[in-house]
Amino acid sequence: MDNYVRIFDTTLRDGEQSPGATMTSAEKLEVARALARLGVDIIEAGFPAASPDDLEAVRRIALEVGVPSSTRPKPPVICGLARASKHDIDKAWEAVQQAARPRLHTFLATSEIHMRYKLKMDREQVIERVAEMVAYARSLSEDVEFSPEDAGRSDPDFLYVVLADAIKAGATTLNIPDTVGYTTPDEFGALIAAIVKNTPGIGNCIVSVHCHDDLGLATANTIAGIRAGARQAEVTINGIGERAGNTSLEEVVMALHTRRPVFNLTTGIDTTHIMRVSKMVSSYTGIVVQPNKAIVGANAFAHEAGIHQDGMLKHNQTYEIMRPETVGVTHSRLVLGKHSGRHAFKTRLQELGYALSEAELDKAFARFKDLADKKKVITDADLEAIVTDEFYQPREVFTLDGMQVACGTMGMPTATVRLRGPDGATRTAAAVGTGPVDATYKAIDAIVQTPNTLLEFSVHAVTEGIDALGEVTVRIQSNDGQHKLDAQKEVDQPRTFGGHGADTDIIVASAKAYLSAVNKMLVATGVRGGEEESASEVGVMLVC
Amino acid sequence: MDNYVRIFDTTLRDGEQSPGATMTSAEKLEVARALARLGVDIIEAGFPAASPDDLEAVRRIALEVGVPSSTRPKPPVICGLARASKHDIDKAWEAVQQAARPRLHTFLATSEIHMRYKLKMDREQVIERVAEMVAYARSLSEDVEFSPEDAGRSDPDFLYVVLADAIKAGATTLNIPDTVGYTTPDEFGALIAAIVKNTPGIGNCIVSVHCHDDLGLATANTIAGIRAGARQAEVTINGIGERAGNTSLEEVVMALHTRRPVFNLTTGIDTTHIMRVSKMVSSYTGIVVQPNKAIVGANAFAHEAGIHQDGMLKHNQTYEIMRPETVGVTHSRLVLGKHSGRHAFKTRLQELGYALSEAELDKAFARFKDLADKKKVITDADLEAIVTDEFYQPREVFTLDGMQVACGTMGMPTATVRLRGPDGATRTAAAVGTGPVDATYKAIDAIVQTPNTLLEFSVHAVTEGIDALGEVTVRIQSNDGQHKLDAQKEVDQPRTFGGHGADTDIIVASAKAYLSAVNKMLVATGVRGGEEESASEVGVMLVC
Repeated sequence: MDNYVRIFDTTLRDGEQSPGATMTSAEKLEVARALARLGVDIIEAGFPAASPDDLEAVRRIALEVGVPSSTRPKPPVICGLARASKHDIDKAWEAVQQAARPRLHTFLATSEIHMRYKLKMDREQVIERVAEMVAYARSLSEDVEFSPEDAGRSDPDFLYVVLADAIKAGATTLNIPDTVGYTTPDEFGALIAAIVKNTPGIGNCIVSVHCHDDLGLATANTIAGIRAGARQAEVTINGIGERAGNTSLEEVVMALHTRRPVFNLTTGIDTTHIMRVSKMVSSYTGIVVQPNKAIVGANAFAHEAGIHQDGMLKHNQTYEIMRPETVGVTHSRLVLGKHSGRHAFKTRLQELGYALSEAELDKAFARFKDLADKKKVITDADLEAIVTDEFYQPREVFTLDGMQVACGTMGMPTATVRLRGPDGATRTAAAVGTGPVDATYKAIDAIVQTPNTLLEFSVHAVTEGIDALGEVTVRIQSNDGQHKLDAQKEVDQPRTFGGHGADTDIIVASAKAYLSAVNKMLVATGVRGGEEESASEVGVMLVC
Repeated sequence: MDNYVRIFDTTLRDGEQSPGATMTSAEKLEVARALARLGVDIIEAGFPAASPDDLEAVRRIALEVGVPSSTRPKPPVICGLARASKHDIDKAWEAVQQAARPRLHTFLATSEIHMRYKLKMDREQVIERVAEMVAYARSLSEDVEFSPEDAGRSDPDFLYVVLADAIKAGATTLNIPDTVGYTTPDEFGALIAAIVKNTPGIGNCIVSVHCHDDLGLATANTIAGIRAGARQAEVTINGIGERAGNTSLEEVVMALHTRRPVFNLTTGIDTTHIMRVSKMVSSYTGIVVQPNKAIVGANAFAHEAGIHQDGMLKHNQTYEIMRPETVGVTHSRLVLGKHSGRHAFKTRLQELGYALSEAELDKAFARFKDLADKKKVITDADLEAIVTDEFYQPREVFTLDGMQVACGTMGMPTATVRLRGPDGATRTAAAVGTGPVDATYKAIDAIVQTPNTLLEFSVHAVTEGIDALGEVTVRIQSNDGQHKLDAQKEVDQPRTFGGHGADTDIIVASAKAYLSAVNKMLVATGVRGGEEESASEVGVMLVC
């Protein structure tokens, strides 16, 4: 058996399925690009049968990230998920087929509880369906992955039979999910070892592991599975995903990396990109990373990067088993100031990994100069916030034209908001609320007139200092019954929309974040933007 | 070997050591009470040699939580940490001796890298010091715990010798720390098994495990250690602690609980208190819990509590291995409204576990009525925010008397703040900032005149809905060189102070949070409050 572990990232599929993690197609594409730079082997880009939006997002990733380029001669495999039905497999194939290396991933549950209560199928019916659908997928694609859902709670003897039939039908990767995060490392390692030993024909396939963190054991279970013979690990950035989430990419990769003499296993990951992708995913999904999160938490390293004195280094090793630089933690320091020119600005953005067009650079530079007027110290984090806020916003149906707010302890917080609508006309509304944000949102609602519920609202300062840029993330739920199909539970979930905004004024940032979420919701419900929208954006934002 | 695993909670010691987690003595006491209700066996209440403040906090916990009461006939063991020196052990004993069941915990590093670079001691010197200091601790206390620091990277043969000498000198609990979170479950389990097998005299001691989560393996390592013979697990609430933090109490306890047939091990934890203690610790330390955190994250459960239809329950089990009610997740619903009376309010607070005096109840009820005027739906989370904001604040040196703010896209955000100072007089200042929070903090600074740096600023909505209470957490660092002794690194760390505030107006909440942090800093630097402070508070807040 080789010692190369394939990293299968499902941030865009299982990760995006977590409540409120909805990303726009533009954001998904950006995450896929970042995952490719990170060196991920397989990107599970979505569940194309969920909606035309989801299909289109996967198709764009296949076309733009799944093809060879000068910097990436061997692009990542682009994978689409499908339930075990022709309809789903057709949709998934439609989405991924233009990638240089497409993969179809189909699944069917094999645990007694899932077969009885969800599928309402018996063992014979499950075996028959798996054989039929894996064969159908294989008739379209050379690369087919099959997962027996809830394998962790399935009868192992039944698993060997289902998996052997999937192999006979043409599956090339067999993924063993602990769907509900129920197993211990000993159990899960033993299950993988037993599957490798007892499944006829498995020698020609890649065995994969897919764990969930309900008991805090996902990373340990994944590593136990790899040690027992799995050579693909299914993971997400920051461990996002439903409930307690999936296995964290960064934890598995850095455990294998840091303890390489013990494991003798390698991955294709460029670890120095880990922190940047982590921040991007946190920003786009609005799912915060706690300070004490392993590898990517703000406190994860005892010492800041950039300390190179010999004495200090020795001291570092007494409490630090990884160097911050290894995962791309850069010391947040003064890089640019009020007098920095366009060239220095462009160079720093390139160093940070952003390749902007000249027109985009002009817009970003104007934002930078504006910020430099207000704030003495401009850090990398500020630059990243500017770029994110400026370019990764949804299509604007309504734009913020101006606002003013008065609040304090005297009661009656009041906001006046002027928005430019899809018709190009401006409308102004004033509202009183329980606080300045509430007043602002009420004024926006008075203009936009789209009923929704605010599920989450959070603000954090991007950088140190009280003159910091504030970054606001909100998550709203449509009140008019919009739903999205969930692949596994086979139920429609209420759709939620996240938005983010950055400004030195957190009330203005709050307004931007809310408008960003409301605009996503309007696009999803079919409200069309004005004339200025680009053709490609119309393509992306097809109404479902 | 019995099958009872002792839960040793070090939230107040190793957890409080994480950046910015500083709690006031009043908050520490409240957390200790909550840990006792949770059923923790041992509370490590602090490192008394760090400062007189720390000693006093441990002493109060020993006196108020470490003694038998009608509801708790067998109180938890109260433990104080001490380096292997007479000075530290004396301080620790001074702090814990009045508990019904006091414990002294001393440690010395045993890994080559720590002995060489930190201790500058050889093996012989380490053995001698351990024997001497454990014997000294045992001369004071019947219950003595010893930890060979960085055991995970120590030579096992050397460990057996050190541990055997500690046992001979009187140690009753031997704790094996993986100080830097370096080991894998297989390695750590094997280490514990080897220690149990090869250490003379260990049969009469309790073996303990203490893991860190740098590679995301703390929970798995802890469980591996327990299965290999450890019967004490050192953990923190929410897994807080330095770097990636300590093992999470909730993950270890719920893994043992959920998979009890596999492990056949029990703990004394009342799991239904887990969520409340988690929220309390997050609120006091300002360390957020990510939504995808196992057990206590906001998304950890697939379904909300309180759904009892039969069909739904069966469906729940397909994706849920624990019931939300088991860990105390209550459905956040309308419990009280505008017309609710004082009795209903008091009853609900009691149900939530708060026992307020009549005077406190009056204050809280006034806050509740005020909120009910602004907000239609008052949930349990709102009630908890009111109680936290009203009663768990540091002594107020400066209090907010009034404020007004104007901001928006027109530039020039302006705040006017009126504070009442320690002399009882009010002072008013106005300031312009980059945003309303910056302007407010500049105005406060103009009055308080205490230089500091804002390290962190975050806001989140307590409940759903745009009229929600906003809860703000800030962390500041004193600019005048205040430091606090770190037990392990033997270096002074810059002191940081956290503050929180809640209000429907997030700018007012921001002002409250900042004032709360500034007041903590002023108390620590020796600025005394006004005359109205209670005698017990003066006792708690002794100047260091």
